[in-house]
This record gives sequence, C-alpha cells and structure tokens, in this order.
Amino acid sequence: MKKHRVVLDIGIEGADKWEAVFRNIDNLRADLGANNVEIEGVIHGKAWPLLVRPEKGGAVEFHPKVEAAIRSGVKLVLCENTMKRNKLEKPDVLPYAATVTSAIGELVKKQTDGWAYLKLGV
Amino acid sequence: MKKHRVVLDIGIEGADKWEAVFRNIDNLRADLGANNVEIEGVIHGKAWPLLVRPEKGGAVEFHPKVEAAIRSGVKLVLCENTMKRNKLEKPDVLPYAATVTSAIGELVKKQTDGWAYLKLGV
Amino acid sequence: MKKHRVVLDIGIEGADKWEAVFRNIDNLRADLGANNVEIEGVIHGKAWPLLVRPEKGGAVEFHPKVEAAIRSGVKLVLCENTMKRNKLEKPDVLPYAATVTSAIGELVKKQTDGWAYLKLGV
Repeated sequence: MKKHRVVLDIGIEGADKWEAVFRNIDNLRADLGANNVEIEGVIHGKAWPLLVRPEKGGAVEFHPKVEAAIRSGVKLVLCENTMKRNKLEKPDVLPYAATVTSAIGELVKKQTDGWAYLKLGV
Repeated sequence: MKKHRVVLDIGIEGADKWEAVFRNIDNLRADLGANNVEIEGVIHGKAWPLLVRPEKGGAVEFHPKVEAAIRSGVKLVLCENTMKRNKLEKPDVLPYAATVTSAIGELVKKQTDGWAYLKLGV
Repeated sequence: MKKHRVVLDIGIEGADKWEAVFRNIDNLRADLGANNVEIEGVIHGKAWPLLVRPEKGGAVEFHPKVEAAIRSGVKLVLCENTMKRNKLEKPDVLPYAATVTSAIGELVKKQTDGWAYLKLGV
C-alpha cells in the first residue's frame, strides 16, 4: 500500500478548472512522489465530458491528459448517476476509463477505507 | 455502528443546488445501503432556509424533502452562528430539525470521530 | 497532541469570503476550545494576497487578522506552486507566515496524519 491515498471530488465545469485538475494531479505526484501516492479522481456533475467520447459530447481537447494520467497510474472514474442524467451509456465512456455506481458513494467508501479527500475547484 | 458514516457540508444557495442535496442523499443510501450508512447534513451560510419555518423565510417547497429525510434517519442540523447572523431563534427552526453550536466545529468533531466528509455543491 | 486537528483548504477570492475565513477560525476555536484544536490554513490559488506583502499585491486590509491568527497559534501557509504561477518569491511572503511545497500535497499529508479536512467557501 502506498503511503498516501487520496480521492478527488471533481464536479467542476470549464476548461480553466479542468486544466487545474491535471495541474493538481501533477503537483501532488511531484510533491509526494509518484510512487508514494495513490490517486483516484471521481468525475461527476458537469465534469462528465472529461471521460466521455467526443461523438457524445466529450471534451476531446482534454483526452490526451486524461489518457496520460490513467496510463501513469491515476484512476479516473465516472459516476453512473451522472451518466443516467445525461443519457450516457457505458460504451460512451472512454475505453481506458471506468465507472462507479455513484460518485458520492465512492467518495465515502474510499474515506471509510482511510483515504484522504480533496474537493477540487475554488 | 453503521459501516459508513458521513457528514455533509451544506452551505450552498438556490433551488437547483438544494435539489442536488437531496438527490445526493438518495444516491448515497441507494449505493451504500440505507442501513449501512449514517448521514448528518450540516446546514450553514446561505443554506439556512432549508431548516427554517416558512414564516421566517424558510424554503417551504423543500420542507417535505427535509422532513422525509429526517424521518428516514438522516440527521439535518442548523448552525447556531448562522442563526445569529440571520436573527433566527430556536423556535424559528423546523420542529423536526436540530441545531449545533457551529457548523465548522461539528464538521471537525465528526471527522475526529472517524466520519467521512463531503463538501456539497460544485 | 490536541484533540482536534484540522487543515483548511483556502483557495477562495474576495473580501467577503476572506472575512468568512477568519470568522470560521474564530468560530472553530470558540466551539472546540482554542486549546483543544490545532488549525492549519493552506492558502493557494486566488487567495494568495492574504499572505503576501502589500507592495507585491498583498491584501493589506486583512494582514492584521492574518497576524493575529498566527500569533494566537493558527498556522497559515502559502503554496509555492501558487507563488511560482504569480511570480512571487519567498521574501514577498509576510514574515510571520510560512510556505509549503504544494497546497494539495500538504492537504493530503495532513489527512494521512489523521487531521480533519475542511474546504472553505460556499
């Protein structure tokens, strides 16, 4: 088990705020050591385009950052309740991303398991 | 003791955001199991109308949801510092709700006791 | 070790929100007992003027509150990543404040050590 584990609450909208998400992840790995911190970002609400295919309204300009983060070991998951509210199906999600039953449930489960919590956005 | 315990930080304003509060609570109970999670929502700042009587400016259209949540076992409490700042007295609070000395103190005490924390709102 | 320890996530902008930061700190100490709670406020993003010298764009009207909080035992630290993004050097920081490598890293480290977490702002 890595020394630090943190679940990120990501419900924010807009390119500036999404840029900050990836900057935050980079800063966290640089500060704590990439091998020393396990990161899971839980995407919900208006942040859903980060993890959805371009033809379904996904934010294609962020997908290289999403894919790079996942390939480097960061987990990024999409809330299935958010998917339902936006009429999205599992095949609409980027193939390298995953989903969780509910963002809020996931954020609680991880904290019950001892993970730290951060709400991103101002 | 239930497996999961979570304190919700609720200081947001507006019908859309208040709808999301109750949707979040429903999603949380559906995901984790209503018998498996203890929930306390701490209301402060501009969210005060959720727990205040209509004749004192309370948000009457949300009171059925507030009452249903409390009757189903969710605890919803109002910050007494917020009450003072808004010239509200204890009889102005909905009879089925409770108060706490300070929202911020309550949110810390619960975490010291091992509860998870979620900041609601974008 | 004090009974309660809490790290505050402070990235908000504007006089109203900064007033609320210090009101929150006062309320927390009044509720839990000043000798019973250890508080560290982590300043980042658009909140940086709170801890920066007036001649570098600091929010001089808040500095008496900042200094009083620090002298009373509250730790207030500025994110060095935020400093770089705003072209600020260590001598630009108020002499009684400190800095941390990254806000996000500090907020995780403290939680790993058992501290509670609060995101300030609505």
